Amino acid sequence: MRPDFTSISLERKEVSTGDHTGEEFMRICTAEDLQACEHLDYVAGWPPFLGGPYASMYATRPWTIRQYAGFSTAEQSNAFYKSAIQSGQRGLSVAFDLPTHRGYDSDHPMVIGDVGQAGVAIDSVEDMKILFRDIPLAEMSVSMTMNGAVLPIMAFFIVAAEESGVQPHQLSGTIQNDILKEFMVRNTYIYPPAPSMRITADIIQWCSHHMPRFYPVSVSGYHMHEAGAPAALELAYTLANGLEYVRSGLTQGLDIDAFAPRISFFFGIGMDHFTEIAKLRAARLLWARLIKPFGPKNPKSMALRMHCQTSGYSLTAHDPYNNIARTTLEALSAVCGQTQSLHTNALDEALALPSRHAARIARNTQLILQEETKLTHAIDPWAGSYVVEHLTHTLMHEAWAHLQEIESLGGMTAAIDSGVPKLRIEEAAADKQARIDRGEEIIVGVNAFQSDSEAKIPLLRVDNAEVFANQSHQLNALKQSRDSSHVELALSDLRTAASQKSVNLLDVALDAARQQATLGEISSALESVFGRYIAHHETVTGIFSATMQTDEHATLARTLSDEFTSHSGRRPRILIAKLGLDGHDRGARVIATAFADLGFDVDIGPLFQTPEEVVAQAIENDVHITGISSLAGAHRTLVPELMEHFKKEGRDDIHVVIGGIIPQEDYPLLFQHGVYSIFGPGTVIATAAIQILKTLLDHDDDQH
Amino acid sequence: MRPDFTSISLERKEVSTGDHTGEEFMRICTAEDLQACEHLDYVAGWPPFLGGPYASMYATRPWTIRQYAGFSTAEQSNAFYKSAIQSGQRGLSVAFDLPTHRGYDSDHPMVIGDVGQAGVAIDSVEDMKILFRDIPLAEMSVSMTMNGAVLPIMAFFIVAAEESGVQPHQLSGTIQNDILKEFMVRNTYIYPPAPSMRITADIIQWCSHHMPRFYPVSVSGYHMHEAGAPAALELAYTLANGLEYVRSGLTQGLDIDAFAPRISFFFGIGMDHFTEIAKLRAARLLWARLIKPFGPKNPKSMALRMHCQTSGYSLTAHDPYNNIARTTLEALSAVCGQTQSLHTNALDEALALPSRHAARIARNTQLILQEETKLTHAIDPWAGSYVVEHLTHTLMHEAWAHLQEIESLGGMTAAIDSGVPKLRIEEAAADKQARIDRGEEIIVGVNAFQSDSEAKIPLLRVDNAEVFANQSHQLNALKQSRDSSHVELALSDLRTAASQKSVNLLDVALDAARQQATLGEISSALESVFGRYIAHHETVTGIFSATMQTDEHATLARTLSDEFTSHSGRRPRILIAKLGLDGHDRGARVIATAFADLGFDVDIGPLFQTPEEVVAQAIENDVHITGISSLAGAHRTLVPELMEHFKKEGRDDIHVVIGGIIPQEDYPLLFQHGVYSIFGPGTVIATAAIQILKTLLDHDDDQH
Repeated sequence: MRPDFTSISLERKEVSTGDHTGEEFMRICTAEDLQACEHLDYVAGWPPFLGGPYASMYATRPWTIRQYAGFSTAEQSNAFYKSAIQSGQRGLSVAFDLPTHRGYDSDHPMVIGDVGQAGVAIDSVEDMKILFRDIPLAEMSVSMTMNGAVLPIMAFFIVAAEESGVQPHQLSGTIQNDILKEFMVRNTYIYPPAPSMRITADIIQWCSHHMPRFYPVSVSGYHMHEAGAPAALELAYTLANGLEYVRSGLTQGLDIDAFAPRISFFFGIGMDHFTEIAKLRAARLLWARLIKPFGPKNPKSMALRMHCQTSGYSLTAHDPYNNIARTTLEALSAVCGQTQSLHTNALDEALALPSRHAARIARNTQLILQEETKLTHAIDPWAGSYVVEHLTHTLMHEAWAHLQEIESLGGMTAAIDSGVPKLRIEEAAADKQARIDRGEEIIVGVNAFQSDSEAKIPLLRVDNAEVFANQSHQLNALKQSRDSSHVELALSDLRTAASQKSVNLLDVALDAARQQATLGEISSALESVFGRYIAHHETVTGIFSATMQTDEHATLARTLSDEFTSHSGRRPRILIAKLGLDGHDRGARVIATAFADLGFDVDIGPLFQTPEEVVAQAIENDVHITGISSLAGAHRTLVPELMEHFKKEGRDDIHVVIGGIIPQEDYPLLFQHGVYSIFGPGTVIATAAIQILKTLLDHDDDQH
Repeated sequence: MRPDFTSISLERKEVSTGDHTGEEFMRICTAEDLQACEHLDYVAGWPPFLGGPYASMYATRPWTIRQYAGFSTAEQSNAFYKSAIQSGQRGLSVAFDLPTHRGYDSDHPMVIGDVGQAGVAIDSVEDMKILFRDIPLAEMSVSMTMNGAVLPIMAFFIVAAEESGVQPHQLSGTIQNDILKEFMVRNTYIYPPAPSMRITADIIQWCSHHMPRFYPVSVSGYHMHEAGAPAALELAYTLANGLEYVRSGLTQGLDIDAFAPRISFFFGIGMDHFTEIAKLRAARLLWARLIKPFGPKNPKSMALRMHCQTSGYSLTAHDPYNNIARTTLEALSAVCGQTQSLHTNALDEALALPSRHAARIARNTQLILQEETKLTHAIDPWAGSYVVEHLTHTLMHEAWAHLQEIESLGGMTAAIDSGVPKLRIEEAAADKQARIDRGEEIIVGVNAFQSDSEAKIPLLRVDNAEVFANQSHQLNALKQSRDSSHVELALSDLRTAASQKSVNLLDVALDAARQQATLGEISSALESVFGRYIAHHETVTGIFSATMQTDEHATLARTLSDEFTSHSGRRPRILIAKLGLDGHDRGARVIATAFADLGFDVDIGPLFQTPEEVVAQAIENDVHITGISSLAGAHRTLVPELMEHFKKEGRDDIHVVIGGIIPQEDYPLLFQHGVYSIFGPGTVIATAAIQILKTLLDHDDDQH
């Protein structure tokens, strides 16, 4: 008889940020450490599912190799999927482009730089049909990373399947549909939190009735991980989000057992090997403990099933073949943590979308783990290990303290309003960046062991102008051929449903999809009722300078900014801006924090700006420098436009610098258009600041 | 108080071959499995050193990154070493070319194809000085893989160091000097076992007096691993060899504590993750147990210190970037097993010597493990794990049974005479090959998940003609400039010493080195007394066919060979031959076993043949086919010569086929010279046999 796991005392500990769990076991872990662990009696397959959700785990069937992919058009992505399936992939995972995420059709004037760049462009059910052409949806599980435009995408998916003869109850897979973390870290929301939560709940409800094999929510810690959250934070906030979805399902009148077994989770896996393994084990136990009070009859309601992805953040643009080793180690952590499916990043993902060769190697990494290592023979292999059991125990307690904090704020929806979760993650991210900049954390090839020669690798490039032209053409043709009165009627039904809580929005969206309404039309109909969410942006300060106290670069940067201030009468002023639909703002926010701490006057622009808007803000605030952070590949279109606007306004004296993921071969183009400096991944922030300040001082001297 | 480890009951179990340890834990390991383990009380830093030889392990200092490298001339290798040290490598490991291993100078007529190919060519103390130019030998530990020609190489090393101002007592590092395993698997011996063992013992004795920081023996399981030995065999035979060296040291009159702490070990690390970790833990406990009865006063005499190398055998020529993932996983096993130093193979080692880029990625893999994963924070991290503790227990018992078998044969020197160890390894290797050929063991990209496109990678090519010319020139110059009467005297002293057991041979060899005697001259002086060892070659049969019983390819091959037999009145006859100095005979021996089992009449040629000798044997035995196995890169010189000899003798009707490591770009050259087929790594043996038999049958039909 195993003891009841809810009796494990997870007493309140003090909440701390910072990623210090790893250091705690610098001392030797021995059998004595197990004495503090109250969780050792639990195994795989039984609540609280410590060792895994199934009793036999990989011995019966290994984890699903599920590579996240998608780019350009539905046609091209479809070809890519089919070749991946041919080569041993066992589940699909669709990456949509940013316009699709944010609810815009590809021909929307604001989105051209982003069309087809970071994923596939999907405008209507017709694109969705092409995306899955010749792929048997009754057998292949499909995961879709979609949050903002989740209604049209689910509707397109269901209708496309129906038209290929597959009914909703046959469909298996996942839709991310985790809107809470969008407000915390990922930023591909459309509507404000309350209507967004309604959409989530409607989808959970619809799926619990019609799609029993489908997971209608994938609660995602991955994006917190990538935003810089340490393990305990990622764990706590992900579970807190999950808890919020459970409560919203219950509010919809659903029975806990009707939907809890269909909630899945998604974690990021970084380089801290033991901690990541412990994290996944702790996640399962904590989730079971959180669900138990709801009185599930079905034990599976308490079982946490997960997808994992190796960390993109841990990859480097320098010497990209090093990334194969990194991804392999991270994949092993996920497997030792007993994940149900896994995406392994491709070696070139710090540079561009994966090329075919890089995608093959990434997939092969998982095949090698499954076929050559005998890892699948063991169940929860780290069970019993003094180190990992101790860490599992420690992480459970740390995460529990963070969970209690969120609960004390009234649950995650309320906590997000308070700004606490975002703040805690940003503090940790700034702290980590400062430790990297000081060389306390080593990244091989970046801040140590740099190589003098670089292996050149062929990158996948998407011609967004071509995708734009193609999609615009298709949209025109669609609008010609469909019955527009039916479309209008469906959209009007959608607006009505949005204002009446009693109707399930997915039911109505399905009808709009059948009438060939576009993603943009559906989203805009809902927006007319719900409104569009605009984020507030506060910046954390003090974290970076505290950690950088004694660093000589930081000291020099501060001296130079003081010097500039005494010369010119005001602090150096910088606008940190994001262009287009790229919502990855960890980099931008860390840089804003750091520059503020280095003595700059920092403006941080809102997300999702057009080049024109950025120029207007830069001029209005009279900044000395505009820093653009670009991670989604749209820079080739949007930065030249930006430079044109500066010229047109006669303010090309404002220096433009760019940071983020910019392939080397794009540098000449950007410099030709007048970009002043480009800072790639691995740049020490203080040295970038020094470089900028020296230029400003020279410029200042010229004027005197 | 921990219990005495010699009281752990390692009762005799039945000896079994085959690599089945892994399958045993298909069942779930739980806390109950720990009850059978009698070793759980032991930790790192205390006898029996289960968790590692030092108490604080990597927390104080991580393992030494020691990449095995060397090619072409001393000049080029020196440049390579210096750049590696610059890039984060922390210890050197010298690869010598095959002529050096076998005691031939580079200008010996037999060796041209092998000069500078698989390692660096060293002919005299002058080359050794160039090899270590500008490398501070008092600070840099140097490992040298040398067994046959260990006397001249040690002498050159010591004299070269002296001339750079470094005394023997300041030198740290290792010389392999493990001659027993040469007779079992690696074949780079020169003299018969008895005088070879005397040389080993003389070096141990000399170093125990003069080089206290140097390890005079590195007992190597690696080559058994690469020859196909499963973990328990590798473990048992390596420790049995170590035991034999201990006994020979004691016979020399040394105190156990004077040399036992200076014996190191060297293991190969394959893809079976948990088993490899358990192997390294078991090795330490078993070694302590074997040494304890000799009554050491110093506990360090019982501590097994090891170097590990990732498996070359596990790498594939297909899709070589997959090898980065393999090597990373193997490196992690070695690290989790708490190795003291590590070589990680380069991604292109299944194709050629590592290129500079591939060598950098291999080195970076270790830097990433040390710097980015926090693995160094834990000591013996798998301690307590049900899976790994259970496997540690199982492997200890299996290895102990094999050890007992060797002891019952009178220790390893006697056992080698009996042929038992070689036989057991070959049985296991043939069994493994058959499982791969049947697809029961998957190798990604080879027998499953093949890719249609291959990434072309730039390979390092050594121009052996150039190295030959360069070395010959240097040798001539040396012979002109040195005092030949002094050389003659030194060599004559060496001959005398060889016939008198009371003199330490290294003392005399040092004098010869100082007089600039060459490696070939020193070796040949000793050979004149000791003789040169010629190996016997029996072939294992039955293993392959037993495992292949129901395989359709094997059945077809047997049918075809029967058909050929009834047509032509005798069985298809094949000579399996090795050319030049390449002693890697696992492949050749597995193929011989398999072909015999598929109905061929198989002759297996002696090692180290010239092309002329192979042709003579092929004609004398009137074979239908000659199969050449080549792994050390000499095929470009030796195969064309071979074909010339066949033509000259008018027997170019004998089909020549080649297998082994042959880069694709060499195929045209070999085909031009009349080679019939080339079978790369990953070829299913039965399908190669079918192809050969079909050709023979066609040919037979033509003649009727």
